[in-house]
Amino acid sequence: MGIDEGRYRVIIEGMEPEIDGGRFPIKRTRGEKVVVEADIFADSQDALSCVVLHRKDGDPRWEDHPMVFLINDRWRGEFTVPQVGNYYYTVQAWVDHFMSWRQGLVKKFDAGHDVSVDLLAGGDLVEEASRRAAGSDGKKLKKVALALRSDQETSDRVRIALDEELAELMAKYADRELSTTYDKELVVVVDRARARFSAWYEMFPRSCAPEPGRHGTFKDCEARLSYIASMGFDVLYFPPIHPIGRTHRKGKNNVPGGSSDDPGSPWAIGSAEGGHKDIHPQLGTLEDFRSLMAKAGEYGLEIAIDLAFQCTPDHPYVKEHPEWFRWRPDRTVQYAENPPKRYEDIYPLNFETERWQELWEELKGVVLFWIDQGVRIFRVDNPHTKPFHFWEWLIGEVKKDYPEVIFLAEAFTRPKVMYQLAKLGFTQSYTYFAWRNTKWELAQYFTEVTQNEVREYFRPNLWPNTPDILTEYLQMGGPSAFMARLVLAATLGANYGIYGPAFELCENRPKEPGSEEYLDSEKYEIKNWDIMRPDSLRDFIARMNRIRRENPSLHGDRSLRFHPIDNERIICYSKQTEDFSNIIVVVVNLDPHHTQAGWVELPLSDLGIDHRMPYQMHDLLGDARYLWHGPRNYVELNPGIAPAQILRVRHKTRTERDFDYFM
Amino acid sequence: MGIDEGRYRVIIEGMEPEIDGGRFPIKRTRGEKVVVEADIFADSQDALSCVVLHRKDGDPRWEDHPMVFLINDRWRGEFTVPQVGNYYYTVQAWVDHFMSWRQGLVKKFDAGHDVSVDLLAGGDLVEEASRRAAGSDGKKLKKVALALRSDQETSDRVRIALDEELAELMAKYADRELSTTYDKELVVVVDRARARFSAWYEMFPRSCAPEPGRHGTFKDCEARLSYIASMGFDVLYFPPIHPIGRTHRKGKNNVPGGSSDDPGSPWAIGSAEGGHKDIHPQLGTLEDFRSLMAKAGEYGLEIAIDLAFQCTPDHPYVKEHPEWFRWRPDRTVQYAENPPKRYEDIYPLNFETERWQELWEELKGVVLFWIDQGVRIFRVDNPHTKPFHFWEWLIGEVKKDYPEVIFLAEAFTRPKVMYQLAKLGFTQSYTYFAWRNTKWELAQYFTEVTQNEVREYFRPNLWPNTPDILTEYLQMGGPSAFMARLVLAATLGANYGIYGPAFELCENRPKEPGSEEYLDSEKYEIKNWDIMRPDSLRDFIARMNRIRRENPSLHGDRSLRFHPIDNERIICYSKQTEDFSNIIVVVVNLDPHHTQAGWVELPLSDLGIDHRMPYQMHDLLGDARYLWHGPRNYVELNPGIAPAQILRVRHKTRTERDFDYFM
Repeated sequence: MGIDEGRYRVIIEGMEPEIDGGRFPIKRTRGEKVVVEADIFADSQDALSCVVLHRKDGDPRWEDHPMVFLINDRWRGEFTVPQVGNYYYTVQAWVDHFMSWRQGLVKKFDAGHDVSVDLLAGGDLVEEASRRAAGSDGKKLKKVALALRSDQETSDRVRIALDEELAELMAKYADRELSTTYDKELVVVVDRARARFSAWYEMFPRSCAPEPGRHGTFKDCEARLSYIASMGFDVLYFPPIHPIGRTHRKGKNNVPGGSSDDPGSPWAIGSAEGGHKDIHPQLGTLEDFRSLMAKAGEYGLEIAIDLAFQCTPDHPYVKEHPEWFRWRPDRTVQYAENPPKRYEDIYPLNFETERWQELWEELKGVVLFWIDQGVRIFRVDNPHTKPFHFWEWLIGEVKKDYPEVIFLAEAFTRPKVMYQLAKLGFTQSYTYFAWRNTKWELAQYFTEVTQNEVREYFRPNLWPNTPDILTEYLQMGGPSAFMARLVLAATLGANYGIYGPAFELCENRPKEPGSEEYLDSEKYEIKNWDIMRPDSLRDFIARMNRIRRENPSLHGDRSLRFHPIDNERIICYSKQTEDFSNIIVVVVNLDPHHTQAGWVELPLSDLGIDHRMPYQMHDLLGDARYLWHGPRNYVELNPGIAPAQILRVRHKTRTERDFDYFM
Repeated sequence: MGIDEGRYRVIIEGMEPEIDGGRFPIKRTRGEKVVVEADIFADSQDALSCVVLHRKDGDPRWEDHPMVFLINDRWRGEFTVPQVGNYYYTVQAWVDHFMSWRQGLVKKFDAGHDVSVDLLAGGDLVEEASRRAAGSDGKKLKKVALALRSDQETSDRVRIALDEELAELMAKYADRELSTTYDKELVVVVDRARARFSAWYEMFPRSCAPEPGRHGTFKDCEARLSYIASMGFDVLYFPPIHPIGRTHRKGKNNVPGGSSDDPGSPWAIGSAEGGHKDIHPQLGTLEDFRSLMAKAGEYGLEIAIDLAFQCTPDHPYVKEHPEWFRWRPDRTVQYAENPPKRYEDIYPLNFETERWQELWEELKGVVLFWIDQGVRIFRVDNPHTKPFHFWEWLIGEVKKDYPEVIFLAEAFTRPKVMYQLAKLGFTQSYTYFAWRNTKWELAQYFTEVTQNEVREYFRPNLWPNTPDILTEYLQMGGPSAFMARLVLAATLGANYGIYGPAFELCENRPKEPGSEEYLDSEKYEIKNWDIMRPDSLRDFIARMNRIRRENPSLHGDRSLRFHPIDNERIICYSKQTEDFSNIIVVVVNLDPHHTQAGWVELPLSDLGIDHRMPYQMHDLLGDARYLWHGPRNYVELNPGIAPAQILRVRHKTRTERDFDYFM
């Protein structure tokens, strides 16, 4: 070990948050806080001063915030990140000779020792600081140094030594020459607020024609915007809008060898009409797409498109860049397979090609092309089938110039792969929510993703259904199952989405028993949904989204806590703002068929509720009000009426209570 | 992010063991195993191959050991470290195209697909491997490649493809060009076995004279060796053996202003007679010391000395190197203080001196001086009052040339400081054992230090007493308290020590009530211990140390597990060898005054014991034998007879049982 400076006495370790030793950034949205903790200690018993440093990328100046001592050598500090982009943070600490001296002085003086030499030593420390200080501060410190060395009464000089203003000045001009700075500059990626709080609506544009049988267009989508906006969504996500291949095109219900009438799957990208930078002609033109985006904006809706980096045999890349595909010994291109299953309509890109750099650049070009059209949200299809390094590079490159871009990872794969994609840069991530149905499963999983280190980089986006996923629970449970799953998705997750109109119309017919595929799936045919059906959940969804908007506790996931209730079929949890001004308690009956009841047990003090006073629970779904008292209260949920209650806690704040008390 | 090679598809993370992101090494002793685990995964579904690599420092060649898949993308491998010194380890993994192909082939063939093109593709893979292979292996592979492409029956060729020898050859000559190597080379510091398993005896040489009143010498110590060896100790540790200062010398019971008759504290180092490289004249000469070391060696005892880096006002350094001390404004040297307490007989070295490099070199010189005399074990006094970087440098420098040196950290300070000292290089560490007396305290603490990451770098050394520590438990509990604490120290810790003869003579008088200091402490006066007293615990200690030697399960701490017993005053735990050939169950009555009894509950399957069969428990302390059956058994401990049982489990091994069963 080569040592240039052996006098650094402070050790800084156990930094939090820090992902994989600083290999990956943490994530925040604009205006959020970063709370930093570290173990900080030095040899011996000297006092320490510790600060958290942060700076915006591009700004060379570090900003200081003091850290406070917690317990067991643990310190905490915090800062906020007001702008979108990258921030850096680290920790600095030093042995504080002035504070050590000050503390020792008091003890010795109180014990009746002669402190005259100590006062001289203090004078030296203050004089040194005065040399580091500017202007009037320097003068003040010089004056104090003289006073400490003067022949004033000892007790007067001790009083001067203990002056709080002096302590502040000495902190301001501390000698940091031998301070230890943590050896890593950690990164915060700051996204816009929508990265943290968003309600997505997935829809096939081709199914938007008002009359049956016709291929929908972007113009038809414009007419559908008011319907979607009326339900309160933020993001309107389209499956791929590119030309669809003809070779091995799939027919209805995924049958191989579709007829020429079959529209094909939008994920089978590429035909004579073009590839990933082109629009499927039947949907309209690029101009139509831009017009739709503008109209959507007027409704407060942002369009998200799909990045599905795969090709059909008809994709222009196959001819133009044969080197981007894997070739078999019989001189055919290797189609996708999951042995023994074959997907002959899809040619995966070969990321092991020696021309990988050109391939990466081209795919980046695809993203930039759509950014040029105004798209800022991308839902990424199957990212786990492309190399991790590719995504890290792509997202990093794009966000350098467009830090406001959001990437949602569609990866329903192994947990560590999903977490890796989030670590390397995906803004939001699909989750296992669809397959977490029991109380234990939901509590276990959402505790894992919101209460561990995972929450620093993984932003869950909860989907009760997708075009690929119609869960058994939805197949069996009827409308109340859809309502329960909607409430769970929209309140467990600050980000959630549904695939509609299948969802609001409670479409629940599987391809066959035991399958999670939809019967007559929209992936392979054009639908004509009767969105005005009286039994649609559109009003319920609209109410849910209004509740979300109006209650800031639902705009994030960190405060999520599960609470005991003595019925396995009912789940209870809460979210709250840091200042307790908005507290939401959710109870959901997970049994779609029967009324369930039980006694909820709330940790009142964690929620800032006075256990001596009754408090009102306002059910924002049913608009009923209940008076609760103490930690244990009764709930009863009839799925035929409403399978859930979203209870806003209305109680006097601590200050109001104290005021009452003294009146 | 600059990317030179974007085709690395494998991610390696979550490495274990890895201390603070690889900042610190792990520790092992010669011949021990290192088990390495990591999360390893790639995009898509391809098969992976993973190996753990290791090499000895100085040897450029890495050695491979295959890792096996556990669950949830976790892999495990292991290697052993046969020699003292440093080893490096890391992990390498790659997408295994041959294994992926092989698995796909089986599935397709079983599903009745045409696999002719697949067989050609396999032929290509095998041929590529043949080009990487040498000699006969290369020829074999070429032959297989030809066969796979031949016009033999498909089923025959599939059989050839699935041949195990082929799989082994393909693994041996795998294409690792695009393999991922974990980005850190982690370090294992390998010590000699004594670092893991040692019994220490601390003794003041000056109290070894056979007749009262005389200052003992090294010659007297020689005469004492057989006594110490007969108790079965490995390490004989002396408080500082250097000249003792006269200025402000402490009198009996630490009274300031001792008389010229007072011998002073051995930790007050330095006088006109010399400093840290000199021997206190009344003990003898350097030659005497070397002779004592040689004699001790004949008894199987290794001498450890004390590194106490502090000076008295009389130390030669004060005049020769005034710049190594802190000076007060009144031109006196700053003495040690812990305000309002003052230690005017001690001048701490000022590690913040601008001449720190010369100071460091001098202190390293002290260590090397004693190494030259043959010392290989150092007990370091108060390491937490000197900078961490200094110790890391010093220990690193010394172990470069003398990897067999052992440093024991005497730090009874905050947990994170103690752990930091262990991380940065101390071989063994004092613990909080002395102050952990209840069952809960003991189980909690020793689980923390043996079952967490801590065990990778922190080797506990357990002391029931030291010259500074006479716990209330020992003061109050009489001989059975000493026996109980000895058994706990010697079995909870593979490393332990006692301060004798105070310990074996059950010296238990405190300086005053509530004090942990000894009355008439040996630190300030010469003692004449009656080591032949009939009530001495010397035979008990000898038995304890023999049990330790004879039972390999007590030679390490990793297997320690605590077991339930329905009496808070009795603690039960076990240690075992990995192959179950030696299992020790210890029960200790923590109540030194009353008989206690209870039902122990053992996890039989974890201990390799058949729950259907009785098993014998042989109490190695009392030499009684008990027949136990099933997990719950009764124990009763009378502290008047023996406060503990050390039960060796004697039962048939699984193989013996199976043999019986079939007979």
